[in-house]
Amino acid sequence: MTTAPKGAALFPASFDPVTNGHLDLVRRAQQVFPELVVAVAQNRDKSGTFTIEERLEMLETVIGDVPGVTLTSFDGLVVDYASEIGARAVIRGLRAIADFEYEFEMALMNRHMKPEVETLFLMTGQEYFYVSSSRLKELVSFGADVSEWVPPIVAEYLAKKFGRR
Amino acid sequence: MTTAPKGAALFPASFDPVTNGHLDLVRRAQQVFPELVVAVAQNRDKSGTFTIEERLEMLETVIGDVPGVTLTSFDGLVVDYASEIGARAVIRGLRAIADFEYEFEMALMNRHMKPEVETLFLMTGQEYFYVSSSRLKELVSFGADVSEWVPPIVAEYLAKKFGRR
Amino acid sequence: MTTAPKGAALFPASFDPVTNGHLDLVRRAQQVFPELVVAVAQNRDKSGTFTIEERLEMLETVIGDVPGVTLTSFDGLVVDYASEIGARAVIRGLRAIADFEYEFEMALMNRHMKPEVETLFLMTGQEYFYVSSSRLKELVSFGADVSEWVPPIVAEYLAKKFGRR
Amino acid sequence: MTTAPKGAALFPASFDPVTNGHLDLVRRAQQVFPELVVAVAQNRDKSGTFTIEERLEMLETVIGDVPGVTLTSFDGLVVDYASEIGARAVIRGLRAIADFEYEFEMALMNRHMKPEVETLFLMTGQEYFYVSSSRLKELVSFGADVSEWVPPIVAEYLAKKFGRR
Amino acid sequence: MTTAPKGAALFPASFDPVTNGHLDLVRRAQQVFPELVVAVAQNRDKSGTFTIEERLEMLETVIGDVPGVTLTSFDGLVVDYASEIGARAVIRGLRAIADFEYEFEMALMNRHMKPEVETLFLMTGQEYFYVSSSRLKELVSFGADVSEWVPPIVAEYLAKKFGRR
Amino acid sequence: MTTAPKGAALFPASFDPVTNGHLDLVRRAQQVFPELVVAVAQNRDKSGTFTIEERLEMLETVIGDVPGVTLTSFDGLVVDYASEIGARAVIRGLRAIADFEYEFEMALMNRHMKPEVETLFLMTGQEYFYVSSSRLKELVSFGADVSEWVPPIVAEYLAKKFGRR
Repeated sequence: MTTAPKGAALFPASFDPVTNGHLDLVRRAQQVFPELVVAVAQNRDKSGTFTIEERLEMLETVIGDVPGVTLTSFDGLVVDYASEIGARAVIRGLRAIADFEYEFEMALMNRHMKPEVETLFLMTGQEYFYVSSSRLKELVSFGADVSEWVPPIVAEYLAKKFGRR
Repeated sequence: MTTAPKGAALFPASFDPVTNGHLDLVRRAQQVFPELVVAVAQNRDKSGTFTIEERLEMLETVIGDVPGVTLTSFDGLVVDYASEIGARAVIRGLRAIADFEYEFEMALMNRHMKPEVETLFLMTGQEYFYVSSSRLKELVSFGADVSEWVPPIVAEYLAKKFGRR
Repeated sequence: MTTAPKGAALFPASFDPVTNGHLDLVRRAQQVFPELVVAVAQNRDKSGTFTIEERLEMLETVIGDVPGVTLTSFDGLVVDYASEIGARAVIRGLRAIADFEYEFEMALMNRHMKPEVETLFLMTGQEYFYVSSSRLKELVSFGADVSEWVPPIVAEYLAKKFGRR
Repeated sequence: MTTAPKGAALFPASFDPVTNGHLDLVRRAQQVFPELVVAVAQNRDKSGTFTIEERLEMLETVIGDVPGVTLTSFDGLVVDYASEIGARAVIRGLRAIADFEYEFEMALMNRHMKPEVETLFLMTGQEYFYVSSSRLKELVSFGADVSEWVPPIVAEYLAKKFGRR
Repeated sequence: MTTAPKGAALFPASFDPVTNGHLDLVRRAQQVFPELVVAVAQNRDKSGTFTIEERLEMLETVIGDVPGVTLTSFDGLVVDYASEIGARAVIRGLRAIADFEYEFEMALMNRHMKPEVETLFLMTGQEYFYVSSSRLKELVSFGADVSEWVPPIVAEYLAKKFGRR
Repeated sequence: MTTAPKGAALFPASFDPVTNGHLDLVRRAQQVFPELVVAVAQNRDKSGTFTIEERLEMLETVIGDVPGVTLTSFDGLVVDYASEIGARAVIRGLRAIADFEYEFEMALMNRHMKPEVETLFLMTGQEYFYVSSSRLKELVSFGADVSEWVPPIVAEYLAKKFGRR
C-alpha cells in the first residue's frame, strides 16, 4: 500500500470481495481519471465476510500492478478520506434504480459535508448489472459456481470461506 | 466560439434556455474537469423555443468569460461529437429518478457506439431539482416570474419570447 | 359556481373529463377536509378534449349537490389560485410511481413559490390505479365501453365527442 | 397471413419497425409457448412511421418462416383480439422500470376487461435494453448507422424512409 | 409430494406461510400453464418462521387437491431445480416496483446460468398488492387479525406460532 | 403527556431519535392541521437505540411547548391508535421514491383495515431529503458531527449513547 497521489480520483467500496463488476468500473474510471485510488472502506460495525487484509490481498493480486492505481483502505467517512488524500472526485458505480436511490442520498449528504468533493456516477458494464458481492456470496452458499463473475483468486477465497460443496 | 481543447470533458445539453441548474452543473463539473466544453445540441427535428444562436448568446453572456470553459454547438450524435473533439468524458446532470432512466438508457447506447467515451453523472444541486428549461417555459406561459431560476439575460429573452404579462 | 369558502382545501385537476377515480379522491379528501374546492385548471396552451364549460357541467351533475364541495375553474398557477382563495392545503391524488415523480417536482416548485401553501398527497382507491382521463379517452377511441369508470353523464359526453361506434 | 391457432400466446406490438429486441422476445416466448401469434397493433389515431403493410412485410421477411409463429395485425383492443383468437396469454417485453409502469397499468386494465386473459412479462435480452423502435428512428434521423440493432430488411426500409445520409 | 410432471411451469417461493396472494398467483398461472409445480424454496442460511414441513402441510391443505398442481420443496438454486424437473418456465409474481427490481436482477442472473429456463412475470391481483408473508407476520406480532389475507389453516398456524393475543 | 384532542391529525413515527426533518414535518403539518398528535410508535419486536421514554424526553424538550401539539406513544397498529383517538388523518412524510413505495403499501393496508382513516403524505423539506434517524446514527458511529441535523438535546443523547469520539 502506497500513498495516494495528489489529485487522484477515489473509488471507495467494501470489496467484500472484489468482483468483475468492480474491475470493470476501475477500468472505466481510469479511462477518465488516469490516477485512481481504490480504497477498501472499513465498516466499524459490520464485520464483513473477509477481513480488510484479505480484501486488500485479493485486490493486490488482481489490480496491484495496474499503472495509475493505488490500493488503500480507510476507516471513517468517505468524504473525510477524500479530503485527506486531496481527491476532488469520488467514483461510484450504478447498476440499477435501487443503487441510484441509495447513492443519490449518500451523495447529497456527502456534498453537504464536503462541498469541495464531488461524487461522479459511472454505469457498470451491463453484463455486470446483476453482479454484487452479496449476491455472489448468496449464490456460493447455495453451491453455485460463480467463477465467471470473479477473478480466480477470489474464487479460491470464496471456496475456502464457504467450503467446497 | 473557439476550438474545444484536447482532453476536455463535454457537457452537452439543449440549453433552451440555460437555467441556474445548468450553471450549477457547469460549476460542479469544473471542480473535477478544469477544461470543459459546454455544447448546445442541435436537434434536427425539434425546432425548440430559441434558435441555436440565441441559446449561445445567452450562454456567452453568462459563462463566456469563465476560464476553462469553451462554448460550442453541434449537430448529430453526442458520441460522434465527443470523439471529434477528443473528449473522453461526457457529463450529464441528474435531478431525479425520471432523468436517471432516460439517461441510463442513452448512456448504454452511447457506450455501445463509442466504448472509449464514458458518461459521468453528476447530481444537480438540490435547490435545482425541480428546475428544467421546459418547466420554466411552462411557468412563464402561465405568467409566473421565473427570474430566480435563470440568469437575468435569460429572463429578458423569456419575457421577449412569451410576452410580458 | 359559488365563491370558495375561506380555509377550504383545494383539489385542482384538468377533469377532462371527471372519472370515478376523481370522485373517489373527492370523497376521501372530504373525510379529512369537510370544505373542499374542486377546481378545473385551465391550461392556456393545451386545448383539451372538452371545454371548461363542459367539464364544469359534468362535475356539476355529479358532485354539484355534495355539501361542502364548491366547484370552480381557474386560469394560471395553482399556488396563485390557492393563495387567492385562502386555501392552505392543495390535494393531489397519487396512483403510481410515475405520478409521484411529476407531482413531487411540482410540489417542490409550488412550495418554493408559496411556502404557506402545503401540498398533501392522497392515494387513489386501488380499483382506480389504472384509470386516468387520457387512458379512458384512448380506450374510447378504440371503441371500448368505459362506462364502469365514469359517471353516466360523462359516458354520454364521451359518446357524443368520439361518436358511438 | 394465416388464422391464429387456438390456444397460442399473443405477442402484440407496434413493430414500427421490428427490431432485434423484438426478435429476441419472439425467440424467448417460443421457448415457453411453441405456438405464438405475432400481431401488429394498429393505432387508429397515431399514423406511425411505416404502414401496417410495410411492418408486416418486414416481419414476414424476418420471421415468416419460423415454425409455430403466425403473423397478423389487428385493430382495436389487445384483449378483444386475444379473446377473438382464443389466446389465454398475452406476452409483453420489459426492458426497464419505465416500461414496467406503463405495462403494469395496461395489464391491470386489460385484466379488468377480460379476466380470462393473463398478461405475462418477459425480460428483453440485456443487450437490447436500450433498443426501441422510436429510439432507433431518432438515431437514424441523426444519421447514425443502426444496422446492428435491426434485421437487414429493416435497415433498408429505414434508409429508404429517412434517406441515406 | 409427487414427481413433477415433465414440461410443467415452476412457481418457487418461500411460502412462509402461503397467503391468499400466492393462491391468486397459482390460479392465474394455471390459466396459462395447466400443469404447475408449486415448490417451497429452502434457504440453507435463513431459518424462516415455519419449517419446510409446516409450509408444505399448509400448502397441502389449501391446494393439495387442485388438479394439475404438484407440491414439492427444493434446496439450492431455482434454475438448477427447474432444469432438474424439465421446467422451461419459472413463474414469479410482481406486486410493485420494489419487487420488480429484485426480480429483474435475479431473472437476469438465472437466465445467464440457464439460458433455456425463462422467467415469466405475472401481476398479483391488485387486492393483494400489499400482502406479503413478512408483512402479515409483522401485523400478527402487533396483534392484528390477518384472517382475510390467509387461508384458515394458515391463520391457525400463525396463531399457534405467535400466540393468540 | 396529555390526552389526544378529538379530531386532531396523527403523526406517528419511531422518532429514534427525532431529527430536524421530523420537526420540519411537524411544522408543515401544523399549517394544515392546527391540532396534531405526535406519537412515538413502539415496536414490540425491535428494541431501538433509545427507549420510548428517552425518545419522548427529547421530543418534550423540542416541541413540548408548541401550542396544538400533543406528545404520546402507542403500542400496536397505527390505524387502531388513530381510531382510538378519533383521528381521521394520519400524516406521513415522504423523502424519496424508496419511502414512497413502502408508505404506499402500508397506507393501502391501513386503508383496508380502517377505511375511515385516511393517510396523507407530505413532502419533507428538501434540505432534509437525506436525513433519517438511522443514517444519522450510522454517521455518528463513524465519528461524524451531526449537530446540524438534530436539535441540541438529541446531539447530547447521541453523544452519550455512541460515546464521544
